[in-house]
Amino acid sequence: NVPTSFLREIFSVIQDPSIISFAGGLPNPDFFPIDAFIDASKKVLTEQGKKALQYTGSEGYLPLRQYICDQYKKKENIYVTPDEILITNGSQQALDLLGKVLINKGDTIVLENPTYLAAIQSLSLHGAEFKGFTLEYDGPNISEIKQIFQDTIPKMLYAIPNFQNPTGITWSNKKRAIVAKLIKNTDTLFIEDDPYGEIRWSGKREKTMATILKNTVLLGSFSKTVAPGLRIGWLYTPNKKLYEQLYIAKQAADLHTGTFNQYILAEYLAHSTNDQHIHTIAQAYGKQKDTMIRAIQTYLPNDITYTNPDGGMFLWLTFPKNINTKKLFEIAIQEKVAFVPGCAFYVNTQNAPKNTARLNFSNASHTHIIKGIQRLAKAYIQYKKYISK
Amino acid sequence: NVPTSFLREIFSVIQDPSIISFAGGLPNPDFFPIDAFIDASKKVLTEQGKKALQYTGSEGYLPLRQYICDQYKKKENIYVTPDEILITNGSQQALDLLGKVLINKGDTIVLENPTYLAAIQSLSLHGAEFKGFTLEYDGPNISEIKQIFQDTIPKMLYAIPNFQNPTGITWSNKKRAIVAKLIKNTDTLFIEDDPYGEIRWSGKREKTMATILKNTVLLGSFSKTVAPGLRIGWLYTPNKKLYEQLYIAKQAADLHTGTFNQYILAEYLAHSTNDQHIHTIAQAYGKQKDTMIRAIQTYLPNDITYTNPDGGMFLWLTFPKNINTKKLFEIAIQEKVAFVPGCAFYVNTQNAPKNTARLNFSNASHTHIIKGIQRLAKAYIQYKKYISK
Repeated sequence: NVPTSFLREIFSVIQDPSIISFAGGLPNPDFFPIDAFIDASKKVLTEQGKKALQYTGSEGYLPLRQYICDQYKKKENIYVTPDEILITNGSQQALDLLGKVLINKGDTIVLENPTYLAAIQSLSLHGAEFKGFTLEYDGPNISEIKQIFQDTIPKMLYAIPNFQNPTGITWSNKKRAIVAKLIKNTDTLFIEDDPYGEIRWSGKREKTMATILKNTVLLGSFSKTVAPGLRIGWLYTPNKKLYEQLYIAKQAADLHTGTFNQYILAEYLAHSTNDQHIHTIAQAYGKQKDTMIRAIQTYLPNDITYTNPDGGMFLWLTFPKNINTKKLFEIAIQEKVAFVPGCAFYVNTQNAPKNTARLNFSNASHTHIIKGIQRLAKAYIQYKKYISK
Repeated sequence: NVPTSFLREIFSVIQDPSIISFAGGLPNPDFFPIDAFIDASKKVLTEQGKKALQYTGSEGYLPLRQYICDQYKKKENIYVTPDEILITNGSQQALDLLGKVLINKGDTIVLENPTYLAAIQSLSLHGAEFKGFTLEYDGPNISEIKQIFQDTIPKMLYAIPNFQNPTGITWSNKKRAIVAKLIKNTDTLFIEDDPYGEIRWSGKREKTMATILKNTVLLGSFSKTVAPGLRIGWLYTPNKKLYEQLYIAKQAADLHTGTFNQYILAEYLAHSTNDQHIHTIAQAYGKQKDTMIRAIQTYLPNDITYTNPDGGMFLWLTFPKNINTKKLFEIAIQEKVAFVPGCAFYVNTQNAPKNTARLNFSNASHTHIIKGIQRLAKAYIQYKKYISK
């Protein structure tokens, strides 16, 4: 698998602490609720230690599932019951379970191109065929999706409609409605991966696909809103038969997600103001994004276009067509700045555009963001000199 | 899947608190190191909170892998390096990863009959064919294994050589050597699942298969020696190519096992006398087993035979051939005692002996063990009356 080994290479290169890295995808650890976790751990162990350290059910801890339902009611006005929620080890595991349960050799999976690399990795295990559609500033290229649905009956369409990884793009309500209408009454499942939706610093939340399309499986995660080291995510499906199959697959995969983590997280959520906490994270990331955009405008020439997201952790640069960002990466590393060349996120690496880059802004200080973009500008000038020779 | 639904039925029946249950497979929560965990959680969060709550590598936390290596050196005199250890969510996930990486449709998997039900569940996903061999008091029926290896080249042989679940049987060194010789120089992998090996109250440890057979993958777990709610186990393989494949499968499955759990467990292990702790658990379970054996000898007629293990959590009853323990179970429930009918643990449920039962002794008090066996005796008398009519 080419992209994996390429990414591993990148991540081994950027271990050097003198490199400013926009390559990762880590939330900012300054916002981890460490003090609240000290209290929650102590309380859980003192009051419920025997239960919190024992085996538990594969569906997950009930108060945690109830919290997720309450949030859906409050934030999206969806009525979800705890028996429609399955706790998973991050949304990554939800993808793995969906692949196991749904995908057979030769099935078609439709996805955004580019998309989240680990989704491709996880879903490719069962011999599916991938068909990608182009992302525009407001979501999918509709005529490409329509063409795919004319040619085949896909088993699933996987997408990250809010602040997508890697591009930062959000689907407009209009495009959501068109896609929902297209999929309605077909056998295709829409897999709506939403780890970033709550990390929004401006604009208004678009409609969750699950609210407008019944055959949606919605994936959520506490990795970006609380802490990734817990490995707690979930999936929501109102389809009881599918839930039962996913439940059995979860049981076979690892019996259940860690009891201890689930108890601590539930305790933290019950006794903290996590909505306020998420707001704080979003505002901070928004300011980091602003700094990055300003630095791009100031230091990079305007032959480079960029996305300017209202949330999430990433933005996306598009260089002129003759620029190969894999080569730019080599020079950038010498200048001590790192990013991920965009071709790594495409289903078909060979035919992928070579002139794009993913930049993460959630995990660098304002000073580093400015310095990093300055270094990138320097690398870009060198690269252009090199190719003009 | 018949056995799963049957087991679920059992576990829903025994929710009734007036029932004494020998049906579960839970370690005794009285021995969970709760106080030490309170200290470890606080220390980890205070000193390393930002790392402990962040994403980490798919291979697992280095100090934890180092601890596992040190234990192998100390207890079994095997030299293992941390890059040969992959941290998994319990050994259950190791089975899932092995199934994904190794098993293709039509492959043969050889296993003890009866065996751990969730292993069958996990490995059956990829369309393998199962061949079972009979367990005798000292391990496998050798001529049956030889016959299987004459008929086919199995992809793997899965076994729990120490205090097996469900029977409590341990393979003798002699039989281990015979099986190792048989498999050596073949393409078959021996999957040695060892969650109970350290919970030994008498006798001397037999040789770990990994020490006498190179093509062994050894699975371990902290579920029985520390606490199952952490979901931390591991696999050891000296085969670098296989390790790499399993690493990629782990990454696709859920990125990594919870960072927080791994840090807390490593902290606990570094600053506690876990060997002493395991000794305490083993001695207590040994006494519970003694109580159960004495109660069986006292209250059950001697047409029933039983295993008398030197460790682990289970023993195995064999009733006369005309007894159907699924029917006995129904009567036992009315008498307020539960066990698992043995047929649930066989690969081929239809042809499985119908006269066996698994009894768990780790999670019931001495009083309950005696009372439970008395109730079972009463149920057995009623059942015999019923069938003699």
